[in-house]
Amino acid sequence: MTIGLLKEPEGENRVALLPESAKTLIQLQVEILVETHAGEAAFASDADYEAVGGKIALRKDALKADLILGINPPTEEEQQELQAGQVLVCLFQPLSNKELVDRFLSQKLTTFSMDNVPRTTRAQAMDVLSSMATVAGYKAVLLAASNSPRFFPMFMTAAGSIVPSKLLVLGAGVAGLQAIATARRLGAVVEAFDVRAAAEEEVKSLGAKFVKVEGAKDEASAGGYAVEQTEEYKAKQQALIQEHAKKSNIIICTAQIPGRKAPVLITKETVEAMAPGSVIVDLAASTGGNCELTENNQITHIHGVTIIGDSNLSSSMPMDASKMYGKNMVNFLKLLIDKEGNLLLNWEDDIIQNTCVTHDGAIRSERVKNILYPSETTA
Amino acid sequence: MTIGLLKEPEGENRVALLPESAKTLIQLQVEILVETHAGEAAFASDADYEAVGGKIALRKDALKADLILGINPPTEEEQQELQAGQVLVCLFQPLSNKELVDRFLSQKLTTFSMDNVPRTTRAQAMDVLSSMATVAGYKAVLLAASNSPRFFPMFMTAAGSIVPSKLLVLGAGVAGLQAIATARRLGAVVEAFDVRAAAEEEVKSLGAKFVKVEGAKDEASAGGYAVEQTEEYKAKQQALIQEHAKKSNIIICTAQIPGRKAPVLITKETVEAMAPGSVIVDLAASTGGNCELTENNQITHIHGVTIIGDSNLSSSMPMDASKMYGKNMVNFLKLLIDKEGNLLLNWEDDIIQNTCVTHDGAIRSERVKNILYPSETTA
Repeated sequence: MTIGLLKEPEGENRVALLPESAKTLIQLQVEILVETHAGEAAFASDADYEAVGGKIALRKDALKADLILGINPPTEEEQQELQAGQVLVCLFQPLSNKELVDRFLSQKLTTFSMDNVPRTTRAQAMDVLSSMATVAGYKAVLLAASNSPRFFPMFMTAAGSIVPSKLLVLGAGVAGLQAIATARRLGAVVEAFDVRAAAEEEVKSLGAKFVKVEGAKDEASAGGYAVEQTEEYKAKQQALIQEHAKKSNIIICTAQIPGRKAPVLITKETVEAMAPGSVIVDLAASTGGNCELTENNQITHIHGVTIIGDSNLSSSMPMDASKMYGKNMVNFLKLLIDKEGNLLLNWEDDIIQNTCVTHDGAIRSERVKNILYPSETTA
Repeated sequence: MTIGLLKEPEGENRVALLPESAKTLIQLQVEILVETHAGEAAFASDADYEAVGGKIALRKDALKADLILGINPPTEEEQQELQAGQVLVCLFQPLSNKELVDRFLSQKLTTFSMDNVPRTTRAQAMDVLSSMATVAGYKAVLLAASNSPRFFPMFMTAAGSIVPSKLLVLGAGVAGLQAIATARRLGAVVEAFDVRAAAEEEVKSLGAKFVKVEGAKDEASAGGYAVEQTEEYKAKQQALIQEHAKKSNIIICTAQIPGRKAPVLITKETVEAMAPGSVIVDLAASTGGNCELTENNQITHIHGVTIIGDSNLSSSMPMDASKMYGKNMVNFLKLLIDKEGNLLLNWEDDIIQNTCVTHDGAIRSERVKNILYPSETTA
């Protein structure tokens, strides 16, 4: 089997495989065609790939491989050139991209979207969402600290003492927990909010205070993701968050609901009530933001509050983000490669079955089928 | 007495007194004329100053006060308008600004430069260099981490482990020690170098490794500052630093010698030998930099290495930097104010005597006299 490793589009610094991960795959008898300069923005040169046995190729040739590997999918034009039976492994958010899924269906491509990996113990080693959320949560706190006019830690100096910054984390998933841990390392006083009751223990174990709104719906069936809440709950939540936000110097927003607009937790009024010099980092920016005033990929200054909207912070730490992404890829691709290095599609494997979006003109993932094609499901 | 508090020039976000510090001085029977918008970039409004009893004034009126207070001195044109006997308290680096000192002499101004405060225990509470170095060392590490393509801390994840970043700190004064402490908080592995043998213990107490070059001159008479070294020592030092730099992901440069060009510790060859993705933050940029390739107030990318040249990082954390500066100012000004709130110049006080650069047409500071006017000293 040949694997074509794509260079990501302009503005994306990561690469789906660093040379160290490419090496592991090559040892499994796979041939890797590396698009010229694929790893450049992640500080891996073409020579580094050649040193581990990769073949440097033009993009058009990498796109002819049996399996095409990337973070972002190829362009629409390139997708149309792909052949039935070709395998595409990347991150294309099928739940928000029905048009794309329709195209993959009609072209009979075998497509895997890594955000579709089941949240099971065995699949943890392939969970790119968790890996990238780890990077984003860490980086969000660094950005907040770098943009804050105040120290995070407490200082006792000859000229008096500096009080520690107060940080509020909204959403205690992987990104939120990593943000808590990083802010605590830097000496901030941290509070965190999550609708999932299970988050309380994790938040507390990291030395942060849990902000609790009574009466949340908590569906275990959502597979560890947050679910939509009632209007009454949302009003109580809004009041409590406003109260805590006003006392915070820094807010890190990480609350997202897969396939939907992010919940608005910080209103315009909340921002106006915050102290000048406060900083909000909104990781939910690309799906509307947890803050009403967030603009995606922008830094805005409103009433003395700095709002940073960025949902792709992992791109700004391309070495370790690519390293983690690549390790996840290797762990996943091992399931797709037989002992002779050929493609193996074992539909008995729940990871293969659930991560696969389209194959031979049909939808494989039940989750994608239920949400994107509900009538066909019930029919 | 009236004190005129100046708004700093464009690009400087700090202010010499925040309202909380202004309040303390007003309680000492001093009248404070606050230039319009003086605290704006540090998130303190005119209304905040008025609330503690400050009077908002035009710049020209603030410049007529008995004592003029700032971080940067007024413009050359404004200096020429000042009257004999007016007192100026700011930070003007007399050792590098003879022309300025000559002007202050001829105008018979009483000038205090806060970088001239003696390094004694009693003067610690007025030591703005230490306060600002604390901010700069902390912020340098945040900038380095934000610009690094890698994590600082070690991570053990389901998809493998991430090794911690290796950080080298050059110069273990206040900024260097703060950089070590902050990098350690963030989980980096830290090494530090300093020509002063006394630094070894402090470096080690913060959990960092001390990089030792044998045979350094260590003059206790330099008052805790670093001194120039022999050529033989410099060659040994260069070789050792090159060796450690090559293995580092991050270098924080803080080595400075007062009144002189900063020592070059990282050559062009050293930068070329560093791994792509490495980051150098050079706090000595304004006096030439510890890295040969540093450009002041610029971020440069050379051979995959990012070099950030910034000697005024405290301006980027204006709330806490202004708070510390202001507390230092209050502690210093208390020595200059009598019980009725009038100006008091007690030349018996070593802090007053040593911090004062010019008074009534004469140089007061022995250190400034010895370096700027050596012939007059020996005559």
